[in-house]
Amino acid sequence: MSDQTPEQASREVIDRVQGSFDRQGLMRLLGAQLTHVAPGRVQVTLSHRDEVTQQHGYIHAGATSAIADTAGGYAALTLMPPTSEVLTVEYKLNLVAPAAGDHLEAIGTVLKSGRTLSICRLEVFAVSDDGRKLVAAGQQTLIGVPGTPSTTGVSS
Amino acid sequence: MSDQTPEQASREVIDRVQGSFDRQGLMRLLGAQLTHVAPGRVQVTLSHRDEVTQQHGYIHAGATSAIADTAGGYAALTLMPPTSEVLTVEYKLNLVAPAAGDHLEAIGTVLKSGRTLSICRLEVFAVSDDGRKLVAAGQQTLIGVPGTPSTTGVSS
Amino acid sequence: MSDQTPEQASREVIDRVQGSFDRQGLMRLLGAQLTHVAPGRVQVTLSHRDEVTQQHGYIHAGATSAIADTAGGYAALTLMPPTSEVLTVEYKLNLVAPAAGDHLEAIGTVLKSGRTLSICRLEVFAVSDDGRKLVAAGQQTLIGVPGTPSTTGVSS
Amino acid sequence: MSDQTPEQASREVIDRVQGSFDRQGLMRLLGAQLTHVAPGRVQVTLSHRDEVTQQHGYIHAGATSAIADTAGGYAALTLMPPTSEVLTVEYKLNLVAPAAGDHLEAIGTVLKSGRTLSICRLEVFAVSDDGRKLVAAGQQTLIGVPGTPSTTGVSS
Repeated sequence: MSDQTPEQASREVIDRVQGSFDRQGLMRLLGAQLTHVAPGRVQVTLSHRDEVTQQHGYIHAGATSAIADTAGGYAALTLMPPTSEVLTVEYKLNLVAPAAGDHLEAIGTVLKSGRTLSICRLEVFAVSDDGRKLVAAGQQTLIGVPGTPSTTGVSS
Repeated sequence: MSDQTPEQASREVIDRVQGSFDRQGLMRLLGAQLTHVAPGRVQVTLSHRDEVTQQHGYIHAGATSAIADTAGGYAALTLMPPTSEVLTVEYKLNLVAPAAGDHLEAIGTVLKSGRTLSICRLEVFAVSDDGRKLVAAGQQTLIGVPGTPSTTGVSS
Repeated sequence: MSDQTPEQASREVIDRVQGSFDRQGLMRLLGAQLTHVAPGRVQVTLSHRDEVTQQHGYIHAGATSAIADTAGGYAALTLMPPTSEVLTVEYKLNLVAPAAGDHLEAIGTVLKSGRTLSICRLEVFAVSDDGRKLVAAGQQTLIGVPGTPSTTGVSS
Repeated sequence: MSDQTPEQASREVIDRVQGSFDRQGLMRLLGAQLTHVAPGRVQVTLSHRDEVTQQHGYIHAGATSAIADTAGGYAALTLMPPTSEVLTVEYKLNLVAPAAGDHLEAIGTVLKSGRTLSICRLEVFAVSDDGRKLVAAGQQTLIGVPGTPSTTGVSS
């Protein structure tokens, strides 16, 4: 887990997010990693491999979307009660440049955290020796689903 | 390739789409299949496997998005000149029900095919013994990129 | 109120929608009209006037959006309990052709009506002597807000 | 025209944008004003009047959308050649809080300005004695349409 920025979520929140991330079969299949968890802001990283490309060799918009959606979902989760789950209601994503580079960094940032719905900004950057470039940008709406206290055992 | 509906694209178009689909590393990784190619309408199918799930065992929104984006992109491609390529500009997707079932069927349907931009409707259905249910719906904007005749060798 | 199609909502639903529509200052300012109310499907019409145009003389995307949003919102409302209100969570709209013609017809159709959220398809057509043409297409997410029975007095 | 921030576009760009804005019948009907033009960033303001409201007295999502779309479109235009026009391809907008207050400020900011397509971030704030609050956020895709030099007479 990265510690390069000063602000990280509490250990409890980091563990809850990492535990949930590790249960996502798709994240494992893609080879994606959870690289930073801060209150309202989460980063997921994906290395460039042939297995995640489209027909021209760039990273497939579906893989870019998957890590963006996951980053936004967990960003929203960091601001919810410990027993809540979060579901993506919808999202929109612009693919603004070909996703080429060593790896992608997807960042989800909470714009608004409401009682029922949350809104996140989604950004995906391609990182290479030439620098860091925005390859996708979008916005996501999520709904919080309260958990059942008897089944969770999570302390605040 | 399915032949259950009367309308299919020409052999040339089917081969062009299948050839492009087979070069998509992500489609192979997910285990997705191109199951129908008609003018302006393409279907991609994805079987439920642990490797494509999220933390609750449903198919991950990223996998649902990947097959929807691919279906729409190829639907738009069927209506373009043989040397053209298509790129996703953006898309929006609502996840309307948990993606649970034996497999998902993603259908991209062209709403408008313009000189530069095309618009597609995206629908994803979950199929199980209980029937067929809409799990995602959205809309996608694509841009056509003219190819270079000298490099293609594709006959009309 | 148009009666050209066989399926209309009940008198109670029509009155509820028309009453709400008449309280929308923007609809009156634009000169828009509620022209059909069916369960899960509502149509709003806008005549072409200089006052609703953009700099090239076409109807402004904002006016197209306003009638599309209103049509979708009321389509969702027709399927909710009499005391509910509906709010737009978000929507996406593609402007697929210049909005030119005698008038626009915006149609909102419910794709999914859930306990909390509804999803609507949005379509706007321009009508002229040359026929009827799709000028905008999109999708909208709405949230139902339960009303308070003591303040409504509406019978089921 | 506001001069409260140090960075403004050139006089030529401001005049081009203001001239185009003044030709928008809908902006005049709504009573909206163009309040700041900077390279890649434009602000449009709308005062709260009964004529722009929806059934609960808040400013109608359609009016919020209209000023957001206009702000984004002109933000993109400031970065295009003098003879170009800009058209909205599509946009998505989340309504994150009721639009209540003295007036709304819509800000369009260019995220990416390409040869053909531009992407803008849209934000709308409600301003009142209590402060400034985000009421809508979204993203917009635009297409540049080259003008014909013989018809424009605009100097660079």
